[in-house]
Amino acid sequence: MLFWGARSLQDLVASTIAAAPESTPPLEAVAAALEAAGACSRSGANLRCSARRSLLQPELQERELIKLASLAAATAAALRQRGVSDPAATLTAEAAIVVFKVAFERWINDTSQRALPQFIRDSLEELKAVTAGRRSPAPA
Amino acid sequence: MLFWGARSLQDLVASTIAAAPESTPPLEAVAAALEAAGACSRSGANLRCSARRSLLQPELQERELIKLASLAAATAAALRQRGVSDPAATLTAEAAIVVFKVAFERWINDTSQRALPQFIRDSLEELKAVTAGRRSPAPA
Repeated sequence: MLFWGARSLQDLVASTIAAAPESTPPLEAVAAALEAAGACSRSGANLRCSARRSLLQPELQERELIKLASLAAATAAALRQRGVSDPAATLTAEAAIVVFKVAFERWINDTSQRALPQFIRDSLEELKAVTAGRRSPAPA
Repeated sequence: MLFWGARSLQDLVASTIAAAPESTPPLEAVAAALEAAGACSRSGANLRCSARRSLLQPELQERELIKLASLAAATAAALRQRGVSDPAATLTAEAAIVVFKVAFERWINDTSQRALPQFIRDSLEELKAVTAGRRSPAPA
């Protein structure tokens, strides 16, 4: 699923989390980092085709699950560096990866020109809605 | 990580979600189903040892990631049966699996006699807190 080298994506996400203002809530800091990662991607037809192909091949899919698990671990570590303790750090990181995964899958299947960061923001709002017991996201 | 046969766990979770009152919010329905699955497990020393071993072996870990992905897919399908649309169904299911994963890892490393369902409930409250931007869970 991921089109960046796994290591450089982890570094990008970790450094963006580290650079967030201290007052930024952990999940917002991670979402902003993932949006930044999404904005760095070259958005073109080739990229979407490559992403779609990886979703269709079970072997690739398994590798992507492991990559996402590594990204979650790196994200949790970046949060701990900011003083977020466990289990909040792990939960926040894993929840953010879920947001990213859902956003990415919607993005590659979308025919509009909306950018990946917008899907990430929408998915984050949807996650907030479902954890708060609401049926749909709060208005922006 | 999972000690049930993957299929029977999926069936148990799906049927418990289906049996939840219509007014139950989706994430609560899934959490209750996972708590029920946790309560069904035989809680003994052998079980914890087996779970810990699987966490330490990378190859087993990869298989467990794939099992959890299957469980997430089955959970999302059970939510759609209840009329929850996407992306809410997928996000809710994936978030619940994160809650379960974190709870399970805390449970196998815990030396007290607290049962798995209690860890699942605690992790759910922590997820609600982090998505709401709070630093710690709301009081019960």
